[in-house]
Amino acid sequence: MRRINHNLHPELHEKWPQASLSEKLLQFRQLPLSDAQEFFLELSTKDQYEIISQMPEGEQTVWLRILDPDDAADLVQVASNEERDHFIGLVDDNTRDDIQALLKYREDVAGGLMSPRFARVRPDMTVSEALTYVRKQALEATETVYVVYVLDAMQHLLGVTSLRTIFAAEPYQIIRDIMRTRPVKILEDTDQETVSRLFAEHDLIAIPVVDADNRMKGIVTIDDIVDVVEEVATEDIQKMGGSSALGAPYLKLSLMDMLKKRAGWLTILFLGEMLTANAMSQFEDEIAQAVVLALFVPLIISSGGNAGSQASTIVIRAMAVGELRLSDWWRVMHREIFTGFMLGAILCLIGIARIVIWQHFFHTYGEHYWLIAATVGITLLGIVLWGTVAGSIMPFILRRVGFDPASASTPFIATLVDVTGLILYFSVASLILRGTLL
Amino acid sequence: MRRINHNLHPELHEKWPQASLSEKLLQFRQLPLSDAQEFFLELSTKDQYEIISQMPEGEQTVWLRILDPDDAADLVQVASNEERDHFIGLVDDNTRDDIQALLKYREDVAGGLMSPRFARVRPDMTVSEALTYVRKQALEATETVYVVYVLDAMQHLLGVTSLRTIFAAEPYQIIRDIMRTRPVKILEDTDQETVSRLFAEHDLIAIPVVDADNRMKGIVTIDDIVDVVEEVATEDIQKMGGSSALGAPYLKLSLMDMLKKRAGWLTILFLGEMLTANAMSQFEDEIAQAVVLALFVPLIISSGGNAGSQASTIVIRAMAVGELRLSDWWRVMHREIFTGFMLGAILCLIGIARIVIWQHFFHTYGEHYWLIAATVGITLLGIVLWGTVAGSIMPFILRRVGFDPASASTPFIATLVDVTGLILYFSVASLILRGTLL
Repeated sequence: MRRINHNLHPELHEKWPQASLSEKLLQFRQLPLSDAQEFFLELSTKDQYEIISQMPEGEQTVWLRILDPDDAADLVQVASNEERDHFIGLVDDNTRDDIQALLKYREDVAGGLMSPRFARVRPDMTVSEALTYVRKQALEATETVYVVYVLDAMQHLLGVTSLRTIFAAEPYQIIRDIMRTRPVKILEDTDQETVSRLFAEHDLIAIPVVDADNRMKGIVTIDDIVDVVEEVATEDIQKMGGSSALGAPYLKLSLMDMLKKRAGWLTILFLGEMLTANAMSQFEDEIAQAVVLALFVPLIISSGGNAGSQASTIVIRAMAVGELRLSDWWRVMHREIFTGFMLGAILCLIGIARIVIWQHFFHTYGEHYWLIAATVGITLLGIVLWGTVAGSIMPFILRRVGFDPASASTPFIATLVDVTGLILYFSVASLILRGTLL
Repeated sequence: MRRINHNLHPELHEKWPQASLSEKLLQFRQLPLSDAQEFFLELSTKDQYEIISQMPEGEQTVWLRILDPDDAADLVQVASNEERDHFIGLVDDNTRDDIQALLKYREDVAGGLMSPRFARVRPDMTVSEALTYVRKQALEATETVYVVYVLDAMQHLLGVTSLRTIFAAEPYQIIRDIMRTRPVKILEDTDQETVSRLFAEHDLIAIPVVDADNRMKGIVTIDDIVDVVEEVATEDIQKMGGSSALGAPYLKLSLMDMLKKRAGWLTILFLGEMLTANAMSQFEDEIAQAVVLALFVPLIISSGGNAGSQASTIVIRAMAVGELRLSDWWRVMHREIFTGFMLGAILCLIGIARIVIWQHFFHTYGEHYWLIAATVGITLLGIVLWGTVAGSIMPFILRRVGFDPASASTPFIATLVDVTGLILYFSVASLILRGTLL
């Protein structure tokens, strides 16, 4: 957690992304020291690293030491292996231990997000003793003193209180009597999506992280979670758009990396979509006999794809924010079968109207235009219903077998629906047009 | 802002969404009063409203009065007009004024998110005076006492400090000397996306809201923003999937509302997609002469659509999180032309290989199979490049003319690329196959 800060230099922040590395260092060094400190703490980890990596060792020590251990650990993780050891060598012994403990965790679990420096008191302290004790911790590099954890001598988490509560209590009261027991807490390996879900549900400003024996290891604070919530949504959105999660800001990703993230899924989808050529070739004779059938192929498959995109997107997001669980699949089916049928009926009517009106004005479709209209209309009803159902059930299936539901991307559903939709279309056509056009 | 709380009844929260209204009220009334209060504050506004609306007036008064004014205002906004006046009549005069002031703001601007109850001190107070004064405010219904605002007698915002800073300072120091000037602040009508962007960039726990004369009106706290960040991402995702933003949880939306939100865009896309039938009918003769051309139509248009989906999704999200501005469009073009060309080249090679291999084993495509392969390959290169460029530039165009870039949804781009892609395909075919198949 960076401390409360107040953006002393909005104009500098503004110009920052466009500035070259040497300009950044120059501008940074021109700031008065107190402003520079404030500004430095406000920078993203990558920007902090860029600045620090260009400095002589003496300066590096200063700036590394003003960082909280969790932020310093983040910075060290951005560095190359060689620099990593160099940076760790520059901080004081306590911080070094903290950083090394933090580096053991994956970046996307509670242990990787937490800070080990939280405010603590003992259960048998009086309010007045606790105030003095917390004040001492406020002078040190404590993450936040606003939430205060009550630990026994073995570091077991007994309860939690807030500076506000202590502040408002009478001096002679005992912490044990004013603390809350049974706090929301998380294990070190809880993944960050669960952590952010807890923050969203409970409006907490910090959540304690404990090990399997309920010994307190650190706290995750809400300001770190705002970034996580955005990051998780970004990853989901990128997957839903049919690429791998980029994992870096758009303009910072090298062109080769960008290509790698995108080519994989695009190729897989392309291979899947090749089945449409196989499906179509099964009906080559029908197309040759009634070329008019080919004219509606793009309209039909894209309608199925669009309906599927809508449904899968809505369901994936509802699952991601916790509105839908696996066990809700049957309720979702009920709703989507109705919705898909109604949407299909709407497009069916518009499609039939389109053909009949065109025939009226341009005589494009010949004497059997009503049969063509019926073929297109029935197929539209079927494919929109099918696209909607497939798009809404696929995220459930993916989660059930252990994949990320967001992989049921728009293009993935569209590809699935394209192939099956073609078979549906030509089957309907065979039934309705047999003996007339076919 | 709900106060720090610790989920005393996880099992009750768990069962809550499935319970009927009367079950909820029954369970709620069985809780000991202190637990019930804790539980009530943790509930969403809608759940709070559901419970309160079923109570007799005496009970309603109790529960309405324990809410902070911003939360009470949210609850009042959910109620019908008639209930609204009734509820406002039940609270004390101060809160009534606060609620009525808050109701004037739109829900999605800073004024609608803020709480009017913040901790304040005067610049000429000593640290020891300020501590006593803030302690008094901690006993009242102050939103947070952790960030303390320094105001003059006219309520102008002069600076900001934190309880931590006051706490750690010497008793005789003057607030003016320890406060920070030039805080990050926002106007009452700042929209919520800008507010959440500020929180993400600056790691603040609260941001002050001022009017045009720099008079302080309230604060927005970070826990309210976690919800906003999720809500904004959800709206974007739903639009990108080709429907209107749903504006309510999936299972809470009535089937008719669900249909309305989805039918509109689906119909518009369908009308757009009808142009593919027009485009195809221009090439009816070509299809009749070389039915083999029709077989690759779905493969080609979907490849363009998938490439466009990827590009538009990535660019829309990068714009939403502030990585890309309007002025970056030219840099994005550079990157996307390269990426699109490379992706197109990959699919082009796979497509050609597919046709050549199939010919080798099944002799499907006749003696001119190399010409067919060339037609399909060149079209794939072109359509993937075009889809990528169109998908990445469209969000910039939409924002430039004042629309939401997220409306450049996956299906919208796919539809655009489908129509133009067909024209490209048959034009390439005419050029390459003239004199042989055509």
